[in-house]
Amino acid sequence: MPHYTLYYFNGRGRAEICRMMFAVAGIAYDDRRLEFDDWEAYKNGFPGWCVPALEMEDGYMMPETMAICRYLAREYDFYGGAHLEMMRCDYISDCLYEIMDDYMRYFHWQNGRFRNNTAGSEIMAKDIECSDMRYPAYDMMWCDMMFYCCLETPFMDDPALFDNFPMLRALWSRVGHHPRIFNYLTRRPYCDW
Amino acid sequence: MPHYTLYYFNGRGRAEICRMMFAVAGIAYDDRRLEFDDWEAYKNGFPGWCVPALEMEDGYMMPETMAICRYLAREYDFYGGAHLEMMRCDYISDCLYEIMDDYMRYFHWQNGRFRNNTAGSEIMAKDIECSDMRYPAYDMMWCDMMFYCCLETPFMDDPALFDNFPMLRALWSRVGHHPRIFNYLTRRPYCDW
Repeated sequence: MPHYTLYYFNGRGRAEICRMMFAVAGIAYDDRRLEFDDWEAYKNGFPGWCVPALEMEDGYMMPETMAICRYLAREYDFYGGAHLEMMRCDYISDCLYEIMDDYMRYFHWQNGRFRNNTAGSEIMAKDIECSDMRYPAYDMMWCDMMFYCCLETPFMDDPALFDNFPMLRALWSRVGHHPRIFNYLTRRPYCDW
Repeated sequence: MPHYTLYYFNGRGRAEICRMMFAVAGIAYDDRRLEFDDWEAYKNGFPGWCVPALEMEDGYMMPETMAICRYLAREYDFYGGAHLEMMRCDYISDCLYEIMDDYMRYFHWQNGRFRNNTAGSEIMAKDIECSDMRYPAYDMMWCDMMFYCCLETPFMDDPALFDNFPMLRALWSRVGHHPRIFNYLTRRPYCDW
């Protein structure tokens, strides 16, 4: 079994999906959490000067969250079997990642959250409604974990987020109660974001 | 062999990568090009109210450019074999799609091109330099076709785009001279974008 090192900051952010996939796959890895103050000293070591990055045993540094996710999904079987099923995993995950992207951008831009912000809430509701319509009933695919990781901060900000979306609320509960994920969630370090 | 219908506007844009993959795979499909004026009447037929969308024989409508691309790459073998190779295809394609996204956003925002715009050119150069550093020597993978499709409009706008990037210039030439792509490029309808 290869040994991995995952590099990111001390937050859930874009890396949490990788950590969750490792947890469900039962794969040990080094979870390296960089301090923001050290970033300038470290960043040249990462392709594209970005984290998350996943370092392989041979030193190969894998960039780009979604490419890492897809790699792990192939390696540890979170993709389904048929091409059409894989395609649905891909598009659902892409939609969710776009939501997280918008959310993070807004957070950096306003130094605030969507909550109590009309425009932001409307965007979220529209996107989530769109996801709810199209959400398939998978067992535990990587798009299910993406759903949890991309919407965790928005849901912390607004506990009513899923009130009008029963399928999403059920999915949220199902992912969070998966034995390995539940075990992971109760032991991981607390982070604001 | 399934029969596909590809829906998009009358432009290369986000759909050209799908058309190019069909051309190389030698797959016939209906290339439905909607008029902007008809969009309001059509849009409710598309998941997420977006195009491109790929309709399958049974009426299933596949959304999201990149999910469609990955589906076609799996179906027609443009992905490579090893998981690490597939991961590199994914991240290179994602980087290129982000460049196209930025380019299109800028185009809509300013109703202009990057050319003669310092900020825009600097972004492009930085992104492309980054791609050049990391570009692997594949034969003909979907990331090669992404490269051609995402950078075609920027290259039309600025013929000096690849002057300092010999690997990218060579790749551009290699993709454009692939017999099936060359045949496709010389017969497709001309579009501004």
